[in-house]
Amino acid sequence: MKAAIFFGSLSDKAMMQKAADVFKEMGVEYSAHVISAHRAPELLSKTLAELEKCGTEVIIAGAGLAAHLPGVIASQTLIPVIGIPINSGGLGGLDALLSIVQMPKPIPVAAVGIDNAANAANFACQILAVKYPALKEKLAVSRAKIKAEMAKAEEDLEF
Amino acid sequence: MKAAIFFGSLSDKAMMQKAADVFKEMGVEYSAHVISAHRAPELLSKTLAELEKCGTEVIIAGAGLAAHLPGVIASQTLIPVIGIPINSGGLGGLDALLSIVQMPKPIPVAAVGIDNAANAANFACQILAVKYPALKEKLAVSRAKIKAEMAKAEEDLEF
Amino acid sequence: MKAAIFFGSLSDKAMMQKAADVFKEMGVEYSAHVISAHRAPELLSKTLAELEKCGTEVIIAGAGLAAHLPGVIASQTLIPVIGIPINSGGLGGLDALLSIVQMPKPIPVAAVGIDNAANAANFACQILAVKYPALKEKLAVSRAKIKAEMAKAEEDLEF
Amino acid sequence: MKAAIFFGSLSDKAMMQKAADVFKEMGVEYSAHVISAHRAPELLSKTLAELEKCGTEVIIAGAGLAAHLPGVIASQTLIPVIGIPINSGGLGGLDALLSIVQMPKPIPVAAVGIDNAANAANFACQILAVKYPALKEKLAVSRAKIKAEMAKAEEDLEF
Amino acid sequence: MKAAIFFGSLSDKAMMQKAADVFKEMGVEYSAHVISAHRAPELLSKTLAELEKCGTEVIIAGAGLAAHLPGVIASQTLIPVIGIPINSGGLGGLDALLSIVQMPKPIPVAAVGIDNAANAANFACQILAVKYPALKEKLAVSRAKIKAEMAKAEEDLEF
Amino acid sequence: MKAAIFFGSLSDKAMMQKAADVFKEMGVEYSAHVISAHRAPELLSKTLAELEKCGTEVIIAGAGLAAHLPGVIASQTLIPVIGIPINSGGLGGLDALLSIVQMPKPIPVAAVGIDNAANAANFACQILAVKYPALKEKLAVSRAKIKAEMAKAEEDLEF
Amino acid sequence: MKAAIFFGSLSDKAMMQKAADVFKEMGVEYSAHVISAHRAPELLSKTLAELEKCGTEVIIAGAGLAAHLPGVIASQTLIPVIGIPINSGGLGGLDALLSIVQMPKPIPVAAVGIDNAANAANFACQILAVKYPALKEKLAVSRAKIKAEMAKAEEDLEF
Amino acid sequence: MKAAIFFGSLSDKAMMQKAADVFKEMGVEYSAHVISAHRAPELLSKTLAELEKCGTEVIIAGAGLAAHLPGVIASQTLIPVIGIPINSGGLGGLDALLSIVQMPKPIPVAAVGIDNAANAANFACQILAVKYPALKEKLAVSRAKIKAEMAKAEEDLEF
Repeated sequence: MKAAIFFGSLSDKAMMQKAADVFKEMGVEYSAHVISAHRAPELLSKTLAELEKCGTEVIIAGAGLAAHLPGVIASQTLIPVIGIPINSGGLGGLDALLSIVQMPKPIPVAAVGIDNAANAANFACQILAVKYPALKEKLAVSRAKIKAEMAKAEEDLEF
Repeated sequence: MKAAIFFGSLSDKAMMQKAADVFKEMGVEYSAHVISAHRAPELLSKTLAELEKCGTEVIIAGAGLAAHLPGVIASQTLIPVIGIPINSGGLGGLDALLSIVQMPKPIPVAAVGIDNAANAANFACQILAVKYPALKEKLAVSRAKIKAEMAKAEEDLEF
Repeated sequence: MKAAIFFGSLSDKAMMQKAADVFKEMGVEYSAHVISAHRAPELLSKTLAELEKCGTEVIIAGAGLAAHLPGVIASQTLIPVIGIPINSGGLGGLDALLSIVQMPKPIPVAAVGIDNAANAANFACQILAVKYPALKEKLAVSRAKIKAEMAKAEEDLEF
Repeated sequence: MKAAIFFGSLSDKAMMQKAADVFKEMGVEYSAHVISAHRAPELLSKTLAELEKCGTEVIIAGAGLAAHLPGVIASQTLIPVIGIPINSGGLGGLDALLSIVQMPKPIPVAAVGIDNAANAANFACQILAVKYPALKEKLAVSRAKIKAEMAKAEEDLEF
Repeated sequence: MKAAIFFGSLSDKAMMQKAADVFKEMGVEYSAHVISAHRAPELLSKTLAELEKCGTEVIIAGAGLAAHLPGVIASQTLIPVIGIPINSGGLGGLDALLSIVQMPKPIPVAAVGIDNAANAANFACQILAVKYPALKEKLAVSRAKIKAEMAKAEEDLEF
Repeated sequence: MKAAIFFGSLSDKAMMQKAADVFKEMGVEYSAHVISAHRAPELLSKTLAELEKCGTEVIIAGAGLAAHLPGVIASQTLIPVIGIPINSGGLGGLDALLSIVQMPKPIPVAAVGIDNAANAANFACQILAVKYPALKEKLAVSRAKIKAEMAKAEEDLEF
Repeated sequence: MKAAIFFGSLSDKAMMQKAADVFKEMGVEYSAHVISAHRAPELLSKTLAELEKCGTEVIIAGAGLAAHLPGVIASQTLIPVIGIPINSGGLGGLDALLSIVQMPKPIPVAAVGIDNAANAANFACQILAVKYPALKEKLAVSRAKIKAEMAKAEEDLEF
Repeated sequence: MKAAIFFGSLSDKAMMQKAADVFKEMGVEYSAHVISAHRAPELLSKTLAELEKCGTEVIIAGAGLAAHLPGVIASQTLIPVIGIPINSGGLGGLDALLSIVQMPKPIPVAAVGIDNAANAANFACQILAVKYPALKEKLAVSRAKIKAEMAKAEEDLEF
């Protein structure tokens, strides 16, 4: 089980860390890469070629503003690419969301919610779980735990 | 390789047919379901339970307006759910896009572009291709064909 | 007179408290529930079934982002559901508003303004007042008081 | 069971007819009124006073553009007012939605989806059903019928 | 030369003060009123009737959210009404702007920019200056002063 | 009583004709000008200087897209300028509305609704009516007529 | 004087033809290319390398939806890239505009208006005119002609 | 190599300084001007005429809100004008972006991203580099340096 995490700028590192946390919790091996699609396109292509060779199975990529990174990656690989729109500047992340999600056929990027790196990693895990039943078990345990926590919160609610 | 296609209203059938076309071309078996999350929630749950049992590996769901269908499905299964925002009404599909993509963690839906059912199926194929190398080959052939077509179009361009 | 207040996350508790304040002031009995439609769908259904049995007459539900909670509730009951779009993330609550209000027929959710839990409770009271004349009296007294306060503010205005 | 339907211009009549259809189907008596809040404010106030006297229990009001009609009505009565944003002009009804829903406390208007007059009437019926158990029965029968139709559509689906 | 300033809530008082500052500087007499169109509609009508009688010639009205105040005033008088959309809540004032500006014919409200109470007063002065040449002179002097300040700023610019 | 009508392109002529219709009905003398602020800035300045000389008292200006025309006029005169955002292109007139209304202080443009040339002329009449009591009478008659028509429509309504 | 025109799909050909018309009128040599950044990234890179070699001095690129084409080109060359957002789908071109204009520093794309291929070519000409005085003369003649046409239209206006 | 920097208010000075930093780094001579298109139109015209005379080759202009400055400049010169939308007020700079970019043909303004003064200067440099090969060398060195920094960041990344 191998995932890769991409982001275009060190300013997005803290946000993307939440994706890494999910991968760690779920026991998914990952590599992380800070490569801008615009500032270092050759490095991006070279890195993608290496990731293909070493068996990377899913990619998540966070980007703000024009947010081309996930789409540029998707144009160079058949590994599924999940895009995370990052809220930077004044438009609340709407610019990044539209730049990521409105891809032409047949080169999809699948977007999760704005600034929701955790959900990108969760979705990546669900993709991997199609192939790896043990991961599906882990995800099921995690969801069961969340349901238990919610039931506890509901029971304890003072209002 | 088993996929499922969901939509909430017969008015979305023609749009969703484009997803079926991709599955047919790629040799992915699929079932199709017209079930509204709001009008028939019990039927939806029952159908999802059956799909889990018979080994469905990926789900795509199209919805317009409040567009809860993909999220409601995602809350009941660990099968990856890809949402297609459908443009209906006057807001250009922005309502459906936001309703689909802004899911709370850890229950992701991955969105493709507005009205882009073909890309949802393409992304579903890329997910399945993580597990099934033969499908990855087919996708690679398809992309190579598209590149050849584009090169031909560029060569033939009169402008 | 029985109302129920729902929200999907403890982070929305303070906001929803304003609804409880209105119910207290108007003498409307209420129960409160923190249940996510996505993280705990079975608990939500079970709780709704209980509320139906014990005679709940109106429901208000606050949610942010994809904000499916009010719609999912509305799909499972004929009790009127009032949705409160909560402003979280960078889109100012527009995502939640559209996710709540754009429901397909014939399963309506009625939305009040973004972050306006007080108005949701006020509207719930107006619904109950259709049945309970004494509550209508209380609401009339409250509005008269507000008019008096406004007249006082206008009289005292230094500008 | 008495409802009232308001709209501000004859150009909205066809759209609002869908609300009347629901009332007819559910056996709810209604009166209909074409009165602009801006062009005929005195007639509006006079009509509202009469409706109060004759026992009107719920009001639905459709309006486009600045869409003040539901809010102006709500400022003059304690009868619950449901607003229908009408899509006119180039903004897809977003102008009307915001003008209707963003009411100041404690004077709520509850909004349904853009151009969704049927849902406004459905919600009005759910409000009346709090008081009138027979109407609740009728609504339950209607929903059951919709579920049956959906199950039939799902069964018959060719795709 | 008589102007009137309206706003619906004391929370808008500081913002509206900038309009008063302009009137003071230009020697325009004004009255100020804090009256909500929704919370105190009768007081609003009564106050407008008095203002008509005492010769008020122009009205400026600030409002946020659904922002009906300027339109409700405009429906009851032929005095020109200038609306100031106030940015409150998460939508940046776009809700107020649309609620104010999208009035039906033939009942116009003229809007100035979001939170721009000063410009509302400036426009009111330009309206009064059509009738009162001395005020036009004052405005011309003020603009000349601004041009001189700008020329000074340009001259002094260090960059 | 002298008004001027401006628009930047012959494609806006039909839309602006509705303003002329109002002026004709109200007996307001007007001149009309098709001058783009960007394509013919010197002609615009020259024309404005002439209009100042011959006693023009109010200006209405329609523009689409970047819609600078009203603002450029306002920067060169103290005559009140009313801007009409024209819906052209795909953004529904929101671009023109924001370009017109968000003027810096102290150079206001007052905006009416998108494509609402009639209301611009109505507002211009209300401005002129501050000075000319006979015009105020005419406007009052017109409003009374509209109220009568509305009362008739309400009376005749079949629904 | 050498320009290049790019677009990603034959469906944009008619729109982009307007840019070619401007280049023809101004005597600017151009090549045209239909290459999708996502479907044929290697062909794009190869073509750009050739254009660099043969002395291309300015590039205009039209794209709709996620609209990465201009940005991907800009990441691979120092030739100025002007992007044309194309209105396709339901969002009026806002998606394309944001995807094109919100580029990270220091890799700019300069955007012109939605669907405004003519202005992209005009801007490209202005860029070339910095270097080629004869082209500046031609542009000046063209603008003078437009001013004359506008003056004629103003003179002939019947309204 | 001569550039000019314009902005309409001293409050934009800090933002625009980033453009000056780029020009300094690239050795491009520039003049800076704080002139509002609305408050000092004659000073603007006079300054532009002087800049034309002294050989200015490219102009960048930053503006917020209605943001007419770049367009007004573009209407008076054939020097390429790059507009920088500045985020002020509550709309995140979307108002300024649309006001700048949606120019009518054939008078283009080319826009860069919101608040991205650095990119405006970078684009200005790319324009100048069409004429001045030495500047193109400098830009190439700068891009190479950025690629090296990015490669270093990628190498050093701890995650």
